[in-house]
Amino acid sequence: MNLNFEAYTAETTKRLRDLGLLLVSTSKQGKNNVMTIGWGLIGLFWGKPVFLISVRPSCYTHEIIEETGEFTINVPEENMNDIVEHCGEVSGREHDKFSECKLDLLKSKIVKPPVIEQCKLHYECRVIHKIDVIPSLAPTKFLIHVIIAKFKGVLYLRGSYRSLYFGEILTVY
Amino acid sequence: MNLNFEAYTAETTKRLRDLGLLLVSTSKQGKNNVMTIGWGLIGLFWGKPVFLISVRPSCYTHEIIEETGEFTINVPEENMNDIVEHCGEVSGREHDKFSECKLDLLKSKIVKPPVIEQCKLHYECRVIHKIDVIPSLAPTKFLIHVIIAKFKGVLYLRGSYRSLYFGEILTVY
Repeated sequence: MNLNFEAYTAETTKRLRDLGLLLVSTSKQGKNNVMTIGWGLIGLFWGKPVFLISVRPSCYTHEIIEETGEFTINVPEENMNDIVEHCGEVSGREHDKFSECKLDLLKSKIVKPPVIEQCKLHYECRVIHKIDVIPSLAPTKFLIHVIIAKFKGVLYLRGSYRSLYFGEILTVY
Repeated sequence: MNLNFEAYTAETTKRLRDLGLLLVSTSKQGKNNVMTIGWGLIGLFWGKPVFLISVRPSCYTHEIIEETGEFTINVPEENMNDIVEHCGEVSGREHDKFSECKLDLLKSKIVKPPVIEQCKLHYECRVIHKIDVIPSLAPTKFLIHVIIAKFKGVLYLRGSYRSLYFGEILTVY
């Protein structure tokens, strides 16, 4: 494992906090989709570099990753605020967000989903583990009340829980 | 959230990979314990800076975190290889690893567990969410066979599964 993913962690987590990141996936039929993520963790698990993402089952991206197990994470430039916002608001089921946002795609080196040319950094990932976080199964002892209240809309009312995907970082550039 | 945790991610993940990190916890009775971790993820979850750790239920640290919900992560210096190795091999139930390794403790700023003076970086964390990864409950579709084989000893034969703790990073210095 000589991949120097550590060198990119500071820039990636900073952009994740300030703006969000763009996650690209490709369906079995070859249809590309992009969504904005605001949560993510980077580090080592099972001795492998890992990008952990959280996706709601109602998202089109969830359907695709379940099928294919691959995604790319694209770190946008500072001035891509409008694009990141739009990609977080509408669904790829009804929208071609790439054309709406004038995003160009480049072939990835390893995985099928492409990367976004306008972005600064690109991670290619393959899912090696998944956890479904279901409130009735998950212990709630440590889920503090602030979070329950803040994310009640997402976690409970919409009836859409979260899947955590552990994506092995195959390459980053 | 003005904590600039991003600035430390590169150094922390690099040391995690090359050597391991030292996790300190303190029991309700005030007994300190240290263990080595080789897995960990850093980033943002629920809009908060998070350090995700994985602890086997057989570990003394697991018992303490279940009681107290607090820990510190200490990033060792490069030359602390012997110490990191020892702290990963013996249990705090039978060993006083601080005295065996000549580690000095400093009072933390926010949490009860102290930090290790000889270390370079210190994270103070409070658990905000926990997931027990139990093979019979977790979907295995994405758990690739290499991992199953490699970690079979840990995950299955010892009968000790893993708890994932999402620790909010309260401060880092």
